[in-house]
Amino acid sequence: VAKENNFVKELADINSEFAQWYTDVVLKTDMVDYGPVKGTMVIKPYGFAIWENLKAYADKKFKEVGVENAYFPMLIPESYLKREAEHVEGFAPEVAVVTHAGGDKLAENLIIRPTSETIICEMYAKWIKSYRDLPVRMNQWCNVVRWEKTTRPFLRSREFLWQEGHTVYSNENDAQDDVKRMLDIYVDVAENLLAIPVLSGRKTEKEKFAGAVATYGIEAIMKDGKCLQAGTSHYLGQNFAKSSNIRFLNKSGELEYGYSTSWGISTRLIGALVMVHGDERGLKLPPRVAPIQVVIIPVASHKEGVIEKCREVEQLLLSEGIRVKLDDSDNTPGWKFNEYEMKGVPMRLEIGPRDIENGVATCVRRDVHEKFSLKLDDIATSVKSELTDIQNNMFALAKQNLENSIVEVNSFDQLVSVCDDKKVGLAYHCGEKECEVDIKDGTAIKTRVINCYDENHTCIKCGKKSKYRVYFGRQY
Amino acid sequence: VAKENNFVKELADINSEFAQWYTDVVLKTDMVDYGPVKGTMVIKPYGFAIWENLKAYADKKFKEVGVENAYFPMLIPESYLKREAEHVEGFAPEVAVVTHAGGDKLAENLIIRPTSETIICEMYAKWIKSYRDLPVRMNQWCNVVRWEKTTRPFLRSREFLWQEGHTVYSNENDAQDDVKRMLDIYVDVAENLLAIPVLSGRKTEKEKFAGAVATYGIEAIMKDGKCLQAGTSHYLGQNFAKSSNIRFLNKSGELEYGYSTSWGISTRLIGALVMVHGDERGLKLPPRVAPIQVVIIPVASHKEGVIEKCREVEQLLLSEGIRVKLDDSDNTPGWKFNEYEMKGVPMRLEIGPRDIENGVATCVRRDVHEKFSLKLDDIATSVKSELTDIQNNMFALAKQNLENSIVEVNSFDQLVSVCDDKKVGLAYHCGEKECEVDIKDGTAIKTRVINCYDENHTCIKCGKKSKYRVYFGRQY
Repeated sequence: VAKENNFVKELADINSEFAQWYTDVVLKTDMVDYGPVKGTMVIKPYGFAIWENLKAYADKKFKEVGVENAYFPMLIPESYLKREAEHVEGFAPEVAVVTHAGGDKLAENLIIRPTSETIICEMYAKWIKSYRDLPVRMNQWCNVVRWEKTTRPFLRSREFLWQEGHTVYSNENDAQDDVKRMLDIYVDVAENLLAIPVLSGRKTEKEKFAGAVATYGIEAIMKDGKCLQAGTSHYLGQNFAKSSNIRFLNKSGELEYGYSTSWGISTRLIGALVMVHGDERGLKLPPRVAPIQVVIIPVASHKEGVIEKCREVEQLLLSEGIRVKLDDSDNTPGWKFNEYEMKGVPMRLEIGPRDIENGVATCVRRDVHEKFSLKLDDIATSVKSELTDIQNNMFALAKQNLENSIVEVNSFDQLVSVCDDKKVGLAYHCGEKECEVDIKDGTAIKTRVINCYDENHTCIKCGKKSKYRVYFGRQY
Repeated sequence: VAKENNFVKELADINSEFAQWYTDVVLKTDMVDYGPVKGTMVIKPYGFAIWENLKAYADKKFKEVGVENAYFPMLIPESYLKREAEHVEGFAPEVAVVTHAGGDKLAENLIIRPTSETIICEMYAKWIKSYRDLPVRMNQWCNVVRWEKTTRPFLRSREFLWQEGHTVYSNENDAQDDVKRMLDIYVDVAENLLAIPVLSGRKTEKEKFAGAVATYGIEAIMKDGKCLQAGTSHYLGQNFAKSSNIRFLNKSGELEYGYSTSWGISTRLIGALVMVHGDERGLKLPPRVAPIQVVIIPVASHKEGVIEKCREVEQLLLSEGIRVKLDDSDNTPGWKFNEYEMKGVPMRLEIGPRDIENGVATCVRRDVHEKFSLKLDDIATSVKSELTDIQNNMFALAKQNLENSIVEVNSFDQLVSVCDDKKVGLAYHCGEKECEVDIKDGTAIKTRVINCYDENHTCIKCGKKSKYRVYFGRQY
């Protein structure tokens, strides 16, 4: 039986039940499903197409700055993880361990990569001999496993997809430049592709990556005011070079340890996309990353010429490189309107006998939900122009939301009340780990990224001299 | 110090030591390295770029016929593998097992996918309700782990990359059509992209996939006369539908089991590429898949205008979409000639003062090793035309080799002698598993694919009535 209006899938209320709304949206739009093993996810074609678009965009940027792709083994000898003291502390509690293979107990247990610093550095140590071999800059797109206690599709999954770039330079400056260059690319991906404005900057000592000298990150703010770490770029200094013995002969003929970096973005960005743009009707996708940019829905499709005209417009838009779908199934137009709105398709074109008579298609934009006519004789041009406008409008709106979410606070109590009010606090802090823990305990409020270094104020928690001004928020 | 001629890397003799030659080539051209865990490999950028080109080509073909990409979890409950009797028998001996995760012993062991039929069918069983949901056709590009005893980079590795497509149809005919359609795409990838001619057809009962009703494959013949299974497409009938309970309501309102298929190609194709085209100087890559299609080498680069002209040609070719590399390092031209020949770059352009004076670049093709001049004023056009010619010429040569490798044989003794002589035998066989085992035992000669069904002859081994004519060979 054809699907009608009353088949509309129900979503939880976005304002009062944001977490449930998120789960409803990602499941009911066929982006993702739960895997059979607790805490794992199946990325279904509609979700995976978003990942493919994101990957293509980022991969091109990486290659433009000279990064090369490679693939390193997923199984890492357990002993490797233990080489770097902070790294083992950070990752040991959440690794999955292979103890048997090919019918035998293994001589040494293998862990499934939670991240690949240790194994990649082991290979780099073998390959790098002289300053002539540097820099080395490789990236891999792969799966990683982290056995988290609490999971949610895309946001925190026991297996997820990501890219991890790993570099070695002959000096600290070039390595630091790399950290910033890659962070800039992540800002570009978030803002220009996903229309997600971000806060970017250095993370505090407490929040940095296990084994890094410094971690930089991009943070997005969801519609419920919670933050989401959406990408990180680490300066590892000589930490991993020393634990893996990556040494090179410098120009003076002396052996020196290399300076390394690593950086990554993951499928959690898809979660951010949902939670930054979505609304009560479901997903809202920016055109640049949307699997379907335009859906064509025939109205009174049994009438002569309707389907033909729809196919003609479909072919025309396809030939212009627009990702278009014609839904000529026997479900009712009303059901289709709801379905593709929930799926966040940026633009819908309705074409019926009256439209054809008037030489137009009826256009409905998902971002503003306005209905207007586009002339059929230059439809490709106007569709392209509308798509650009939707992309820009969605970014502008999200940027406004971000700015409205940030509140300068001068006391700890004010910080808590601001975060309770679904906002992000911007406050001075002493920079001490213990003081940051004091803030977090009982409130779940954490620092996000440093806004600026400033010693002329006092810490909102302990009252000592400030070290910096930093964003605070609750997180996904 | 700059590298000179005498730094040329030595390769084992391709005729007398083919296996060692292969290992030398893949390691010394920086395609691959051994991973820290025995039997694993690191795919280095030069090898990975080949995989990326192959993946882009095949992925486009899949999408053109309506297949969608997705991603399924890597970790599979151990019990799933055991659902299909032949499947468990085929894969249980070589799985890697996760027994602990997140610091705890798991309630049920998890296996790392050796292939994903069981977990994908589990999800399909959940998603598929009615004939309206069919067909379902998904593909994933991912890593798999099979704990093989004997390994060799690309050819047989404990972890490798592949794609696996999995479909469900409402009837046998459509499923069988899918099996053939995907096999045709694999022939296309092998022949038109990799310039590797293949034998394609059905595998025997003995050689089919564990759990399949029928397996079809493409087989390539290496320069040492051994065969390599380069891609497979399986008709699974209702086997997995029954073991996973994939049922749908048909148009008459009755519950029916689905008909499924699966098909895959992997990084072993890179091994085939090396062993089909390579020669005594190393790798020889067909232009369509080569990471570097043209290398430009300045001659007497200190002379005025040489580097500038090289850069100009580089930019011109780049702008025409040609994958070009200018090597302006201080290594000697002689060293560079050898290096890029070993790396199999299809075309080299030498540009020196005399070339510039004559308005030409000196061109050397890797496939024929001839030296000739190309006029600079229409260099992009002539380079493109030469690259096309190289691609065609390499395929023609490999096709000739394949045809020369196949010998019709009428007795078992003749079959053994033909295989000892580094060729492939084409012979009549009774189709009995035991008889096929009799041939294999002590000779390592196996059937490859069926050439044609024919009951009018006698089996070369047991003398009974033939069932088919089939290719026999030793294998990688």
